[in-house]
Amino acid sequence: MKWLRYEHKGKVFYGFLTDAGLVAAAAGLPWEGAAPTGHTAALSDVTVLAPCQPEKIVCVGVNYLDHAQESNRSLPPEPLIFLKPPTAVIGPGEAIVHPDISDNVHYEGELAIVIKKRCRAVKKDEAAEYIFGCTCANDVTARDLQRKDIQFTRAKSFDTFCPLGPYIETGFDFAGGEIKTRLNGRLVQSSNINRLIFKVPEIIEFISKVMTLCPGDVILTGTPGGVGRMQDGDLVEVEIEGIGVLKNTVIGG
Amino acid sequence: MKWLRYEHKGKVFYGFLTDAGLVAAAAGLPWEGAAPTGHTAALSDVTVLAPCQPEKIVCVGVNYLDHAQESNRSLPPEPLIFLKPPTAVIGPGEAIVHPDISDNVHYEGELAIVIKKRCRAVKKDEAAEYIFGCTCANDVTARDLQRKDIQFTRAKSFDTFCPLGPYIETGFDFAGGEIKTRLNGRLVQSSNINRLIFKVPEIIEFISKVMTLCPGDVILTGTPGGVGRMQDGDLVEVEIEGIGVLKNTVIGG
Repeated sequence: MKWLRYEHKGKVFYGFLTDAGLVAAAAGLPWEGAAPTGHTAALSDVTVLAPCQPEKIVCVGVNYLDHAQESNRSLPPEPLIFLKPPTAVIGPGEAIVHPDISDNVHYEGELAIVIKKRCRAVKKDEAAEYIFGCTCANDVTARDLQRKDIQFTRAKSFDTFCPLGPYIETGFDFAGGEIKTRLNGRLVQSSNINRLIFKVPEIIEFISKVMTLCPGDVILTGTPGGVGRMQDGDLVEVEIEGIGVLKNTVIGG
Repeated sequence: MKWLRYEHKGKVFYGFLTDAGLVAAAAGLPWEGAAPTGHTAALSDVTVLAPCQPEKIVCVGVNYLDHAQESNRSLPPEPLIFLKPPTAVIGPGEAIVHPDISDNVHYEGELAIVIKKRCRAVKKDEAAEYIFGCTCANDVTARDLQRKDIQFTRAKSFDTFCPLGPYIETGFDFAGGEIKTRLNGRLVQSSNINRLIFKVPEIIEFISKVMTLCPGDVILTGTPGGVGRMQDGDLVEVEIEGIGVLKNTVIGG
C-alpha cells in the first residue's frame, strides 16, 4: 500500500493510492491507523508533498562497499550515524537550492525507512514491527564542506537537502530491491538494497540503542557508489523498485 | 524575565517567575507573546521541566580556547556545528542515564540560546531580534564513542544527553556572564561567556545561512575547558550568572 501526503484545493491531507490510481484521503496519521474519509481525487489534481514530517532524520554513512571505496573511507565496524534537521525536508518536485557557499553539491540516492511506533532498544529480530514503510530519499551533500568540516552536519543540513517521497510503501521488502539514481536522465547510481552492509533491522537495533525513535521519524540507510555533482538546472531522480521515483530539480541559491 | 515550563497537578504549563518568586501560568507559547492566565503557584509546588521542546538542537563545538587545547583540537576557522536530537532533552532534576556501551561519559556546561522567530540568513547585527532568551545546557558526551566514531552524533545523541533549564532568561546579556559547572559540589568548569571564540550573533549568522531556525529551537554555544567524567550517582550542576542552576544526577543504564 502506498501512502502519501498531499495538498488539494489548499488543504493538506494524508492519503493512499487506490487500485484505480486515485488518491484517497484518510483521517489521522498513517502510522496510527488512519481511516479513509471517502474523499478521493485524481493524482494529477493534487500536489504530492514529502510523505511525512519527521521529528528526527537519522542517517547511516558508508553503508555500501562501492561508496566506501569511491570515498576513500574504510568500512566501519558498526554503523556510522549522523543527523539531518527536519528543516532540510522537501517533497517530490520541490527544488533543491544550491547554496552559494558550496562548489560541489552531490546527490546521494537512498532507501528511507519511516518509523511506525515509538521505540527504544529494539532487537533486530523485532525491528519489522516498528517500521511503517519505505520511501526514496536524496541525502544531498555539499561534498566540499563535508571534507573541510570533517563533521558531516553542515554539509548535509542545508534547507532542501533532504528530498523525500513520493510514497511510503508499506509492503516493501527491505531485504532487497533495485535502487537507481538518474541525473538529467543518465543512470549514475545503480545498486540493490540487498547490498547494504548493515541491513535495515541491524540499523534499527543500533540506532534505537542510542535514541528513542518516534512515529514518522525517518532513517536514511546510506548511498551506493556513483555519487556526483549536481549543477543548477539539473533534474535528479531517485527510483526504488516497488516504491516510485523521487524527482527534484536544482536551482541556484 | 524568567520563563519556564512546568507540571502542576498533572498538567503542563508555560509560565514565568514573578517578583514574589511565584510561578505565574501563561497561555500560549512564551516566544509568541503568551499572556498571564492569572493562575499562580508556589515554585515548590511545581515540577520544573525542560523550558522548551526544540524541533532542532544545533551545537557549536570547540568554541573556547581552553577546551580546544584540552581536546587537542585546533581552533576552527569558522564555527563547527553538529546536531543533537530532540529525544535527548531532559529537564532540571531528571536523571542523565549512563549508557552501558560507554565507559567515559562527560559533562559539558554550556550557554543555550532559545530562538524566538523563524529565520534564515540572519545578519549578525540583527541576530538579537531572533533570540527569545538564554538557558543553561549540559552537552553530555560519551567521549570514548566520540573518539571512536570521529562523527560526534552517536556520542552526543543518547536519550537524556541534553539537560536544559531551569529557566529561559529573556534579559540575559549574551555578551558576557560567568559560567560554572560543579560535579558533586566541586568546581570543575569556570569561565565567562565573553570568552566564546565565535560570539552568539556570529553563531546565529553562521547557522542560519545553512538552515532555517524555528521558534523554540535551541543553540548550544560550546563548552569551556575542564570537561570530565561523570559516574553513576554523581550530581552535576551547570550555573550561568543571571539565569540559574541546572542540576541533574547520573544513573546507570
